[in-house]
Amino acid sequence: MNNFIFQNTTKTYFGKGCVREYLACLVRNSQVVMLAYGGGSIKKNGVYDEAVRILNEAGKTVVEFPGIMPNPTYAKVLEGAALAKERGVEMILGVGGGSVMDCCKAISMAAVYPGDIWEDFWSKPGIVDFSPLPLGVIVTVAGTGSEMNGGAVITNEEKKIKTGRDYPACNPRFALMDPSYTMTVPRRQMVSGGFDTLSHMMETYFSGPDTENVSDDMAEALMRGVIRDLRAAVRDPGDYTARSNLMWEAAMAENRIIKLGKRCDFQCHLMEHQLGAYINCNHGEGLAVLQPVYYRHICGESPGKFARFAVRVWGIPGEGKTEEGLAKAGVEALAAFIKELGLPSTLRELGLTDENILKEIAGSCSLSSGSYKKMTHEEILDIFRECF
Amino acid sequence: MNNFIFQNTTKTYFGKGCVREYLACLVRNSQVVMLAYGGGSIKKNGVYDEAVRILNEAGKTVVEFPGIMPNPTYAKVLEGAALAKERGVEMILGVGGGSVMDCCKAISMAAVYPGDIWEDFWSKPGIVDFSPLPLGVIVTVAGTGSEMNGGAVITNEEKKIKTGRDYPACNPRFALMDPSYTMTVPRRQMVSGGFDTLSHMMETYFSGPDTENVSDDMAEALMRGVIRDLRAAVRDPGDYTARSNLMWEAAMAENRIIKLGKRCDFQCHLMEHQLGAYINCNHGEGLAVLQPVYYRHICGESPGKFARFAVRVWGIPGEGKTEEGLAKAGVEALAAFIKELGLPSTLRELGLTDENILKEIAGSCSLSSGSYKKMTHEEILDIFRECF
Repeated sequence: MNNFIFQNTTKTYFGKGCVREYLACLVRNSQVVMLAYGGGSIKKNGVYDEAVRILNEAGKTVVEFPGIMPNPTYAKVLEGAALAKERGVEMILGVGGGSVMDCCKAISMAAVYPGDIWEDFWSKPGIVDFSPLPLGVIVTVAGTGSEMNGGAVITNEEKKIKTGRDYPACNPRFALMDPSYTMTVPRRQMVSGGFDTLSHMMETYFSGPDTENVSDDMAEALMRGVIRDLRAAVRDPGDYTARSNLMWEAAMAENRIIKLGKRCDFQCHLMEHQLGAYINCNHGEGLAVLQPVYYRHICGESPGKFARFAVRVWGIPGEGKTEEGLAKAGVEALAAFIKELGLPSTLRELGLTDENILKEIAGSCSLSSGSYKKMTHEEILDIFRECF
Repeated sequence: MNNFIFQNTTKTYFGKGCVREYLACLVRNSQVVMLAYGGGSIKKNGVYDEAVRILNEAGKTVVEFPGIMPNPTYAKVLEGAALAKERGVEMILGVGGGSVMDCCKAISMAAVYPGDIWEDFWSKPGIVDFSPLPLGVIVTVAGTGSEMNGGAVITNEEKKIKTGRDYPACNPRFALMDPSYTMTVPRRQMVSGGFDTLSHMMETYFSGPDTENVSDDMAEALMRGVIRDLRAAVRDPGDYTARSNLMWEAAMAENRIIKLGKRCDFQCHLMEHQLGAYINCNHGEGLAVLQPVYYRHICGESPGKFARFAVRVWGIPGEGKTEEGLAKAGVEALAAFIKELGLPSTLRELGLTDENILKEIAGSCSLSSGSYKKMTHEEILDIFRECF
């Protein structure tokens, strides 16, 4: 194990009925609560009604902040922060998936910070020496794992940059995770969320050091679990075991445990973020298009690790195969799984029509420092073109 | 996944050089620091000198509390608490393995609690509605995983009861884990500590629910890791990869992550604790004697789970075998591993000479509520006799 520092301050309440059981207690110290959510799906599945009823019964002043979009924008963050200041919000309660949670984290900073949080904390890393507004979340989609970390990916539409930062001060105080809330998530979103989880694990796993270490041991077990549980949830969307496993796997992928002592690559996420900034595609679907092509590109740089992935994660028998052959077989097993799930495999399927814009998108991508291979913008352009 | 609540407040600093790098900063808010340790091995390997130098350079008043014994006694807890009160200790710094850490947790409560902590918190579970003294630990032995939880096992010699409680308020504020500190731990202690870790994982794993769940997925990966790393560390005691993995595996076994949604059995620990209370044996060695015999006794109650253990943890091929056959093969693989490590397999080897005392020890054991089979004191006596 390489050196690391670990702490995770979020208190997690997991399971059927957890909102009804704990929400009132968790907001007891705040009178004015901002209820932030997305496009309104929570109004159809009863989650909104339940949260509002509990807040009302507890006598809270509820400040509604609806309409947080997928790939939440910096403009939306500023809108939320202005509302929070105007209404004297004491706590933010985000109800939704990754977009809602990420937007709420940025609002929690912008609502108390006198300067421009984009300039000081997203365009470059900053030091958060103040306390953001307290934040709690009710998770309704399994995927980003944003519920147990301080990470927030925000899109600056004006600058065409989608970028993430992770400030532990932004960790939610509490996360309420009721797997039954995810039961009504449509198949397409469930699958893309599950793939985002798998992608988080792969981006962590495929980075040094690669000597046997506890983080990789756990990542392998979690990846096998996500594959198993996604298959089960596709087969039977009402499978609570699979849905609850997927929800906890999403959190485990991003609560830092499997990242300890690792460098973490995240080059695919950095590429997908810029795709999202330009064409506003679904995050998990963007990753599904990029990841196999990226790995075909780099697997020769660390064939041992990709061979291990083939054997331990996909169960491909290693006997009689070269390391290189196994490495490629592992990447193709991933590509086949993406197809099996019905995820897209080309940028065209994501709605991109003009190949010429790829040069600009590739040029805008940040370059990972954790990868087996330090990418160039030219190589990223090659990958994008291959994905087109 | 079953319902659960999770939080772990301990901030963990892991890796070579972490004490030198972080200790001074971590004690900055306390002037009077109690330096608590065991039999003096830290004076031989340089850990004591390093800690004292850092505390002195930071201008702290150091109150030494040496001599914490294996299986720490309630009398020792009271001695430490009296010293802490007398000298106005503001923070406890425990340097050692599980015994030191557990003793320090109990001292941290006893030093501020007006009543009798044995009566109110160890003889039965209590509610800790006060703040124990802040505690930090420097871990020097991998095994108990006490560094990342609020658990403390204390022996009341007068009442002949060794019992553990886990109060999150007792979680260390920080844990400094430098694997190079464990390099000088003698083979016997390294192996018994590693077996304690494996035992923690097995006691958690062999408990309901047994449907596919994320906690069991991770436990299987961690158990395979402990087996691999113990073998490597026995082969080459200077293998930093193995030693550092073992140190983090010990913490992962007990930082609650693999227990989430599980019932947890711990019947073997409850049996070993009473052995320890009567014959003051080494904890990991006591477990090594009991565990295979206990599992032979109960594996028929959940053959599916024990068969899974055989296949996934020990790599025993499942083809052409009955579930019952596989289940037994898994337990025998564990017994063979214990032999391979040179751990004892009879109570005689632990120093017990009089078989007649077993009835009294068996009668004093607590009964687990998480097991596949609710044990009786008669059955525990049978197991003890078989172990004799």
